[in-house]
Formats: sequence, structure tokens, C-alpha cells
Amino acid sequence: MKLTSFSIDGRPTFGAVVDQNVYDLGGVDPEINDLRQFLADPFDVPDVLTSVPSYPLAAVDLLPVIPNPEKILCVGLNYESHRLETGMPEMEHPVLFTRFSSTQVASGQPIIRPTVSEKLDFEGELAVIIGKGGRHIAEKDAFDHVAGYSCYNDASIRDWQMHTRQFTAGKNFDNTGAFGPWMVTRDEINDADLPNQTVTTRLNGEQVQHSAFSDFIFDIPALISYISTFCTLVPGDVIVTGTPGGVGVVRKPRLYMKPGDVIEVEISGVGLLRNPIAQEPSTDK
Amino acid sequence: MKLTSFSIDGRPTFGAVVDQNVYDLGGVDPEINDLRQFLADPFDVPDVLTSVPSYPLAAVDLLPVIPNPEKILCVGLNYESHRLETGMPEMEHPVLFTRFSSTQVASGQPIIRPTVSEKLDFEGELAVIIGKGGRHIAEKDAFDHVAGYSCYNDASIRDWQMHTRQFTAGKNFDNTGAFGPWMVTRDEINDADLPNQTVTTRLNGEQVQHSAFSDFIFDIPALISYISTFCTLVPGDVIVTGTPGGVGVVRKPRLYMKPGDVIEVEISGVGLLRNPIAQEPSTDK
Repeated sequence: MKLTSFSIDGRPTFGAVVDQNVYDLGGVDPEINDLRQFLADPFDVPDVLTSVPSYPLAAVDLLPVIPNPEKILCVGLNYESHRLETGMPEMEHPVLFTRFSSTQVASGQPIIRPTVSEKLDFEGELAVIIGKGGRHIAEKDAFDHVAGYSCYNDASIRDWQMHTRQFTAGKNFDNTGAFGPWMVTRDEINDADLPNQTVTTRLNGEQVQHSAFSDFIFDIPALISYISTFCTLVPGDVIVTGTPGGVGVVRKPRLYMKPGDVIEVEISGVGLLRNPIAQEPSTDK
Repeated sequence: MKLTSFSIDGRPTFGAVVDQNVYDLGGVDPEINDLRQFLADPFDVPDVLTSVPSYPLAAVDLLPVIPNPEKILCVGLNYESHRLETGMPEMEHPVLFTRFSSTQVASGQPIIRPTVSEKLDFEGELAVIIGKGGRHIAEKDAFDHVAGYSCYNDASIRDWQMHTRQFTAGKNFDNTGAFGPWMVTRDEINDADLPNQTVTTRLNGEQVQHSAFSDFIFDIPALISYISTFCTLVPGDVIVTGTPGGVGVVRKPRLYMKPGDVIEVEISGVGLLRNPIAQEPSTDK
């Protein structure tokens, strides 16, 4: 099943995507108004599909799959190909940084290149969405806590990311975290088959990143177990699992995204996230 | 004026603290249910004080001053005394990391030492709470965006903080971010007098940190301007401005907090945040 968040006539809601239509699940239970709440307390979707309004996908405004996660944890340097291209040492633990939910955009919305930097880089990634919360989750139980998967573009302002050792600034520009177009629920991809799926990033149609998830340094159970050792995961939390080799900052010559470009992140068995690049209007302080 | 969040009979609300009483402001406007919403759309508090319920402070359960900020931005190495004791180079930009709101505790609640580490350290800090949101805020306008000030203990699990270069894990253990007991609104401390205020941290009554805010490397206007260059600040956002010298990890011998200890962070003109330390129950994965 494909689930996503969207707005129709300015009203935010969530729904199930079937073929080219989205079925509005926001009116089914007055206590369940968004996808995060649905993941915490899901009802049976096929039962209600025939009795809820539906719209052509093209007629709604998609929102980030989870517009309001309590936590977004991003993993750095989680593919051997990316670790090698950046010259970073092998890590005993996952490199984690965070993104504010307010920095997210939906599929189709522009990723914004800010006025203060031209170093806007792409990072195609698999997003894991938590369904069942918990703390101290063992690796063997980790997949039971996964609601599903989506595409993420962890677009980064490279010079601001390197202002200090902490990545925070360069990873938290407004309108840079692209998340969509939907999540595919866990039942659609066998846990054991997930490593065979691939992420592909294309800039203006040209492939710039491609890897199978078998190249992860820390796999999904390892990430969930490590993270839940320090904090309690809750439904709707998002783990953005890292990007493979091929990012623009280490290319020769460097390859940054500029206004007018189109960036795509496609994950086999999941979907295709596509965003145009636009320029932030000039700002005077 | 002193404002805080609390719960009474299990119902979360917010209010104004006057002497030893707290006046419940949660029922004044049905659209304004928490302190974050109040900061976004404040009403005149003195007008309503005589007509709302009040409780003795000792009869309510305090909550973190803002239990649900959209963003908590923490500043690292923002006092010369702390930079020197850690041997870190001078920085051209603020070192920023983040804390999830779910990791916060109120004044009086225990800070929890986890099962996985005994390296639980204190960091007494000034928290700046945003009132008026904005992006690209100039330094000269920055104080107009400040709603007030509070005490923060950015308690840190030092070995997990150093697992990789990113501080995320060690700064985001559940029940480690102490925030309270209240915020003092900006009108009570003259902007120009703020550098003369001090933060003092005491472990079991013994002073372990003490500094005036004149020792900041990046002052409040510089922090607000830098942060708002990349993201939009909104009402209720919290900037935790860094800790002065004296933390336990660089002492000889090292000084970590252990169950049964009491840690206090006092800020002149603001208040006193006090938390006992408790041990996380043993966990089996």
C-alpha cells in the first residue's frame, strides 16, 4: 500500500494512493487527522476505500510524506562508496545528524537554493518510517518497528555544512529536505529482499548516484537498535539512511544544483521523487 | 513576568508564576492551549489574572518551559573558558547541534543516567526563547525576536557524544535536557544588561561552573542572525547558548553525575533549575 500526505483545497489530510488516484483517509476517524497519527493507531484501509472521497493525484498538492515527524535522524557516510570518496575513516558507530521537519518539501515542490551559497548538493536516500515506537529495540526485532519506506533528497549546502564540524547549519536550510512522493508499506518489500533494492539519483535526466542497499555500512536493524539505545522512537519518526557515492561536492569538476535543474531520486519498489530547483529571492537584512 | 508550562490533575496547561502561585492561562482562549501557542499570539496577562484559577506552585507538576518547541538549537563551545579547556580551535561560525524536544525534563524531574554509560555530565546554560518568528533577522533587530530567558541543563553522555564527530547521540538521550523552572520575559532584563547576568552550576551544592554572559563568543544577536540565515525561527523555538568552563569531562579527576546527586543551574535575574539524578532501570534487549 502507498500512503502519503497531501492538501486539497488548502485542507491538509492524508490518504492511500491507488493507481493515479489518492483516497482521502482524513475523515475516517475524527481522532486521526494526519499520517503520523494514522501510523500510531492505524485502521484497516481496504475496508474504507469505497466510502471515502478520492481525487486524481494530479489534482492534489502533495505534502512531505510525514510533514510533522517528532524526529528526523539522518545517517552520514553510510555507504562504503561515499565514505571512500570523502576520505573519511571507518566508523565504529553510525554518524547521525538531524533535520528539522520545517525544512522539508514534498515531491514536485522546489528545493530552494539560498542567497548565501551556490553549493547546493543532492543526496538521494532511502527513508525508513517508524510505525511501532520503542526504546532499546533489538536488531532482531527492528523490522517490526518499520511502517514503510520512501525516497528522500537530503539536499545540503556544502560550505555551511563545513562551517564547523557539526553538520547542522548546512543540513537545515529551509526547503531542502525533499520527502516523497509516498511511502510504501513494509509488507510490499520482503525484509530480506530490501538490500537488493536500489537508489538512483538523476540530475536533469543524467544518473549521478546509483547503489543497492546491500552497500549500507550500518543496515536498518543496526540503525534502529543504535538510535533506540539513546532515544525512544515513536510512530512517524524518519530515519534517512545515508547517501551513496557520486555527490556533487567531490566530483571534478564539482557539480552543484542550480535554478532550473530537476533532481530525481528513484528507489526500486518504492517510487520516484522529483523536485525542480529554484532560487531564493534576494534578501536584505 | 514569569511563564511556564505545567500539569494539574494530569491536564497539561501553561501559566504565569507570581510569588509562590501559578495562574492557569490555559482556559483563557480556546485557540491557545500551550505556551508555544501563547508566544505566537499572546494576550494581556495582567488583565486576566484575577479571573483564572491559581494553584500553589508546589501543588502542580512543572513541565519543560516549552514542552514542544519546533526547534531546539544548541550552541557548542560558546565560552572562551570552555573552548580553552577542551582544546578546540577558534571558530569563525557558531558550532550548532540539536536536541529533540522529547529528550526534555522539567525542573524537579530526574535527569536519567542511562544503562549504557556512566559518563553523564552537566552543562549549565542560558536558554533563549523566541517570541516573534522570522528569517534573515539582522543582528540589530534580533532582541525584538526574543520572548524571554530560562535555565537549561544540556546534560550529555560524553562517550556517546564522541562516538563520531557529530554530537547527536550523546546529546539526545531521553530525560537529559532539563529546562525550567520558568521563563522570564525579555522586559525584565534590559538587553544591554544581559551580558552582566551570570550562570552558576552546582553539583550537590558545590559550585562547578560560573560565568557572566559577557564571556559569550557569539552573543545572542549573532546567534539569532546566523541561525535565521538558514532556517525560519518560529515562536517557542529555543536556542541553548552554550556552557562555560568547568564541565566534568575535562576535570582531573573527571566528575560525572551519579544517581542520588542533585544538579542546579541558576541564572541571575531568571531562576534556579534543580534536578535529581536517577538511574535508568536495567534493560534487556
